[in-house]
Amino acid sequence: MNMNRREFNLSLLAAMGTSAIARSQTSLRANGKRLNDHLSALAEFGKNPQGGVSRVAYSDADREGREFAMRLMREVRLDVKIDTAGNIIGKRAGSQPNLPPIMIGSHIDSVPEGGNYDGNVGSMSAIEVAQTVAENNIATRHSVEVIIFQNEEGGLIGSRAVSGELTEKELDLVSRSGKTIRDGIKFIGGDPARISEARRRRGEIAAYVELHIEQGAILATEKIDIGIVEGIVGINWWDVTLEGFANHAGTTPMNQRRDAMLAAAKFTEAVNRVVTSIPGRQVGTVGRIQAWPGAPNVIPGKVVLSLELRDLDGAKIQMLYGRIRAEADEIAKASGVSFDFKEINVNTPAPTDERVRRMIAESAKELGLTTKLMPSGAGHDAQDIARLAPVGMIFVPSAGGISHSPKEFSRPEDITNGANVLLHTLLKLDKQI
Amino acid sequence: MNMNRREFNLSLLAAMGTSAIARSQTSLRANGKRLNDHLSALAEFGKNPQGGVSRVAYSDADREGREFAMRLMREVRLDVKIDTAGNIIGKRAGSQPNLPPIMIGSHIDSVPEGGNYDGNVGSMSAIEVAQTVAENNIATRHSVEVIIFQNEEGGLIGSRAVSGELTEKELDLVSRSGKTIRDGIKFIGGDPARISEARRRRGEIAAYVELHIEQGAILATEKIDIGIVEGIVGINWWDVTLEGFANHAGTTPMNQRRDAMLAAAKFTEAVNRVVTSIPGRQVGTVGRIQAWPGAPNVIPGKVVLSLELRDLDGAKIQMLYGRIRAEADEIAKASGVSFDFKEINVNTPAPTDERVRRMIAESAKELGLTTKLMPSGAGHDAQDIARLAPVGMIFVPSAGGISHSPKEFSRPEDITNGANVLLHTLLKLDKQI
Repeated sequence: MNMNRREFNLSLLAAMGTSAIARSQTSLRANGKRLNDHLSALAEFGKNPQGGVSRVAYSDADREGREFAMRLMREVRLDVKIDTAGNIIGKRAGSQPNLPPIMIGSHIDSVPEGGNYDGNVGSMSAIEVAQTVAENNIATRHSVEVIIFQNEEGGLIGSRAVSGELTEKELDLVSRSGKTIRDGIKFIGGDPARISEARRRRGEIAAYVELHIEQGAILATEKIDIGIVEGIVGINWWDVTLEGFANHAGTTPMNQRRDAMLAAAKFTEAVNRVVTSIPGRQVGTVGRIQAWPGAPNVIPGKVVLSLELRDLDGAKIQMLYGRIRAEADEIAKASGVSFDFKEINVNTPAPTDERVRRMIAESAKELGLTTKLMPSGAGHDAQDIARLAPVGMIFVPSAGGISHSPKEFSRPEDITNGANVLLHTLLKLDKQI
Repeated sequence: MNMNRREFNLSLLAAMGTSAIARSQTSLRANGKRLNDHLSALAEFGKNPQGGVSRVAYSDADREGREFAMRLMREVRLDVKIDTAGNIIGKRAGSQPNLPPIMIGSHIDSVPEGGNYDGNVGSMSAIEVAQTVAENNIATRHSVEVIIFQNEEGGLIGSRAVSGELTEKELDLVSRSGKTIRDGIKFIGGDPARISEARRRRGEIAAYVELHIEQGAILATEKIDIGIVEGIVGINWWDVTLEGFANHAGTTPMNQRRDAMLAAAKFTEAVNRVVTSIPGRQVGTVGRIQAWPGAPNVIPGKVVLSLELRDLDGAKIQMLYGRIRAEADEIAKASGVSFDFKEINVNTPAPTDERVRRMIAESAKELGLTTKLMPSGAGHDAQDIARLAPVGMIFVPSAGGISHSPKEFSRPEDITNGANVLLHTLLKLDKQI
């Protein structure tokens, strides 16, 4: 065993586990003002005149925001690199080089006309946590990697490259920036030809913890400080095509119509009825609709709409889907309008790790913060990392539950609370995992 | 009284009203083969490879089709002119120059990817009727004007110029051809600067009769030869804007949503329920819908849809509209989604003339044809002329009720029947009106 003096001291301290160290670490706090200042500074990149940002992945604003984040990381003496998938990784070495890293982070890309909190809070907080740890000369056993996943909003691209789920074919899809994902990855400093090198295997990450805004109104409404995420819901998305018969709206009597719009209306109502017919936190949404030919004086012959179901339990999603299909069959029989369901995308539910949840709960408790166990209704990079490592997610309240909007807002004190929970969860993980 | 020899003979014959003349006129028939050949020839202008035509007003195909029609008119020795609004008028002089003309006709412009019968049947039949009258040396008291109204499909432009309803402002609207209506009128030989000269006043037209395909399935289903149109329905069109709140489809619990799509679905279902809740032939249609932001993972915050109501009775339309508004109020109260109704267009109902209806019925009876009194659910040029003259409309069956489609079809024998009814209605009108 070859150990230098510093390492010896660190392992001695770790072995001691005594009250002095424990006390000093327990009283550790992130610098809330600095964190919120960093968030304000990041908000300048892609800033919209009407508020919020448009910092879609692979845009100039995205690249500038990433450079800002890397600058912050370097100031904290993190060893910064961009992996071949374009994710930013700032590493702080641990005392035990053989241990896999603990990762903390999020993303900084936004939806078009998005807000200043989704992703940013977790990313800036991870940097703040690394800075707090560094400033207090805390030696962790594990190395700590602050990761900023690229293009979360466009389909969790960066984290799916890490989990190995991103396909070669997807690289040719055109992202919201107008660039293909392949060109986008090059644009931000990745190397799509070597993208597989970004992949991590099971065991190569000790744990991943992501702090994020709730994007719902539950914490704010119930005045709870911290959400402990049980898991990230499964998301199933189908496109549903209804085929009736387009005909003249003036000359076709009501009882001779095969009106695809009316059938779509009954279906949309049925989706809502089925989803709300049983207790639970499942949600179902018809968010998109198009009707053909789409003229006021023509009975629509065809409608295509989206159906999306989410729940923590994949079996429940399938059960609800079965009931919705049965409702569609009934509507079809009565209306002469056919239904065709095409599965477009499936994200299976991703439970968080029980131990990480417990450490988040303990950290919050020690900080005097109230908590609530809750699902994440939104998708997050954590769901991909959950396939290869224990993950945890910490939520802070979103004012009014508003998200993906310039009106997105989380209070500075709530963000600071989140960063402190992230900090202490990291320290607990370092000791216990 | 200055009367030349021919006029003297004609008035003598008219005065006689004896069996010989009556018999010869009663046995008069249009040339069905020639009429259907003309329809086939007209179908070449704007012909689509997949069937039907695209002969939208002011297109090259429209102008070529109009030239074809004018050629046919000239061959029948009609005195052909284009009025300042661009309508084609082929005139055959009557024996009593002081009497206003009887008009027969329709239109030959089509919707994009339309069929070969809508408008064409009435236009070619009117020319055929004029030819039959001419070939049989029948002198009418009234002059006969065969009229082909321009741009019926784009908003009854030609007939509204004749009735004086077309506004100066509308001339600057862009038609489906890509040209403004003003430029389109110039393109087809009209003179938009002098468009008011195309206007006719009450008393300047003795009567107008239009033969048209039914565009519905009633005659074909009930195996009836001729529809006698009671009137052209009123059409009220509103755009309805629903405002809820766009939010994340994953993080917003079902009971905290203000889902504009769900409210739109309930509204569409309510429109159908209200319209079918009372007996009658009224129709109500939601033909167009758009939802914002229109993503599968966002609860729609805004929906705009069209509401169209039609009936022969304007008061009934208003009553139904009132009930629909009440339903919308209920949905708004329950969902937190607001409704705003904006009236876009109103065509008031246009009843046909009782005497013309009777002459159509008598003509059909004499021809051994079955008839049914029915509303026209579609708009027609006749509705504008009804504001200044007695009008009648004759319907022939549409196979399957299909219209505004390449699949539009009416059987040649049904078309010939319609032309014969038009012919005899014209002769009766000439004597009786």
